[in-house]
Amino acid sequence: MKSLIIKKLLALLLLTNAAFAADPLPSWNETPAKKTIIVFVERVTKKGSPDFVPVAERIATFDNDGCLWAEQPLYFQLFFAIDRVKALAPQHPEWKEKEPFASLLKGDVKGALAGGEHSIIEIVMGTHAGMTSEEFEKIVKNWIATAKHPKTGRLYTEMVYQPMLELLVYLRTNGFKTFIVSGGGVEFLRPWTEKVYGIPPEQVIGSSIKTKYEMRDGKPVLVRLPEANFINDKAGKPVGINRHIGRRPIAAFGNSDGDLQMLQWTAAGGGARFCLYVHHTDAGREWAYDRKSSIGRLDKGLDEAKAKGWTVVDMKKDWKIIYPFEKG
Amino acid sequence: MKSLIIKKLLALLLLTNAAFAADPLPSWNETPAKKTIIVFVERVTKKGSPDFVPVAERIATFDNDGCLWAEQPLYFQLFFAIDRVKALAPQHPEWKEKEPFASLLKGDVKGALAGGEHSIIEIVMGTHAGMTSEEFEKIVKNWIATAKHPKTGRLYTEMVYQPMLELLVYLRTNGFKTFIVSGGGVEFLRPWTEKVYGIPPEQVIGSSIKTKYEMRDGKPVLVRLPEANFINDKAGKPVGINRHIGRRPIAAFGNSDGDLQMLQWTAAGGGARFCLYVHHTDAGREWAYDRKSSIGRLDKGLDEAKAKGWTVVDMKKDWKIIYPFEKG
Repeated sequence: MKSLIIKKLLALLLLTNAAFAADPLPSWNETPAKKTIIVFVERVTKKGSPDFVPVAERIATFDNDGCLWAEQPLYFQLFFAIDRVKALAPQHPEWKEKEPFASLLKGDVKGALAGGEHSIIEIVMGTHAGMTSEEFEKIVKNWIATAKHPKTGRLYTEMVYQPMLELLVYLRTNGFKTFIVSGGGVEFLRPWTEKVYGIPPEQVIGSSIKTKYEMRDGKPVLVRLPEANFINDKAGKPVGINRHIGRRPIAAFGNSDGDLQMLQWTAAGGGARFCLYVHHTDAGREWAYDRKSSIGRLDKGLDEAKAKGWTVVDMKKDWKIIYPFEKG
Repeated sequence: MKSLIIKKLLALLLLTNAAFAADPLPSWNETPAKKTIIVFVERVTKKGSPDFVPVAERIATFDNDGCLWAEQPLYFQLFFAIDRVKALAPQHPEWKEKEPFASLLKGDVKGALAGGEHSIIEIVMGTHAGMTSEEFEKIVKNWIATAKHPKTGRLYTEMVYQPMLELLVYLRTNGFKTFIVSGGGVEFLRPWTEKVYGIPPEQVIGSSIKTKYEMRDGKPVLVRLPEANFINDKAGKPVGINRHIGRRPIAAFGNSDGDLQMLQWTAAGGGARFCLYVHHTDAGREWAYDRKSSIGRLDKGLDEAKAKGWTVVDMKKDWKIIYPFEKG
């Protein structure tokens, strides 16, 4: 009796939804990319379809930098780190003489990053460790609410891709659980991903530094240590996905060679699979870069996408608008 | 228009549910423990309550060994490891001479474990690494479906606590997201927790060994390496919770000193909080042990629970039945 009534009400609810359904991806042009997405979602969600996937297994993973928001001229988390170096400089007089901090404080970002990965690690450890997780969360929340992008003058969270926001909602409406799988710091992402992408903290996977549980004045805290814990990039992405989600995604979305292993891992599962690369082709509305870019390089991935028939989004052709603020 | 119709239908659905509501915890005696649970859940879920917690923040974490299923005379994962030593022995002739394997193969479990933590690590690495994650999943699934407990002769998954199963459902019915936070291996738990506890893989946090992504015959695999990655026990539990969930639980459930930091971390958050210890007091129906047990020791935790007013479940007094098979 009870379950019958509930079933009838649920059926009504679904009908009500369907009756009002409009284009779920209004910022996507009517090009093949859009169609491949919709065809895939229908294949895996339609009852009786040979490719039907139960709701619990509808896992979709998204890279963040260059896939959900922009990443030029530098990863946005690096802008955050640079701002933190400036804010923390008075407490670190030694930085005036010490690279990469000295160059940064003189405004020479290029010089500071000349040391490559080593410089980046120095900057991250110098700015992302030494406080509690709660303190770090407040710092991120404050920065993300106020800092402006050097080119657009917009908040960084305004520089998310409207077509991808629609895609996230479309997938969730169809029973998918959406995850972020980013090379960025997990505690840099979590304070704002729920509000901006509708993705809760527990569905964000990222790089991390070690933390230590300790008592301070009888109150437990987690202290962030200047030591890498896990780099969630390249071959680290499938490792992070397995460690965190424990099942293989059926759909994965990226934009660079750093996402290639995530897409390979996703594609190698049984049943229907969907892999998509966002290709940055729009120098006018966003940026155009791929095989030779030091940020978000897409080289091997582009070849593999073509060879395997993955969907490659041409931002210039496939997207009506890039950012939500273009909606006018 | 659309949202109004949906709201009305949802309201009807909720009313229908309420009309049919029965005792959500039928295996709990009408003792204070049961009441503290229900009072807490009502406090945080009732609209307009000063302690109301939005659904997204209703995070509840559960230890597994000794909290959701039994753990005597040995952690069940150790029985698994011992069975694996026997199964793998033909491929490891050197084990006949090498401790702790030699003792295990002679049936001397006590002797094998005499080396303490070091012996356990040897046994785990010798049996849990060297295969792909997919292969390991199959091994666990096969074992959990067939292996029997030495005392009860039951499948290990029959030795879960019926009152805790009801508690999991009760919390989820009230909008909680339930997580396992176990010292056990995450890839040992995930193959069966969804079926047994209704907890999906992505809500299981546990200890882990390192894995490596590699290509084998053009197919990507994750290979399990004989190297510890993370020990999710004691002070590791809040670290694991923060790393995986990224928000603090509002309710936490454990049974040993290994859960103490998880309960402290949970209790230290703002607003209404609930911490519960399962105290093993029933030598007849289960086992009775606490301050001096080498498995599941509850000593400091028992003192802190009393000092802080946490709920302590007396299994003998508070639970009508222990295992689902007692329902008859």
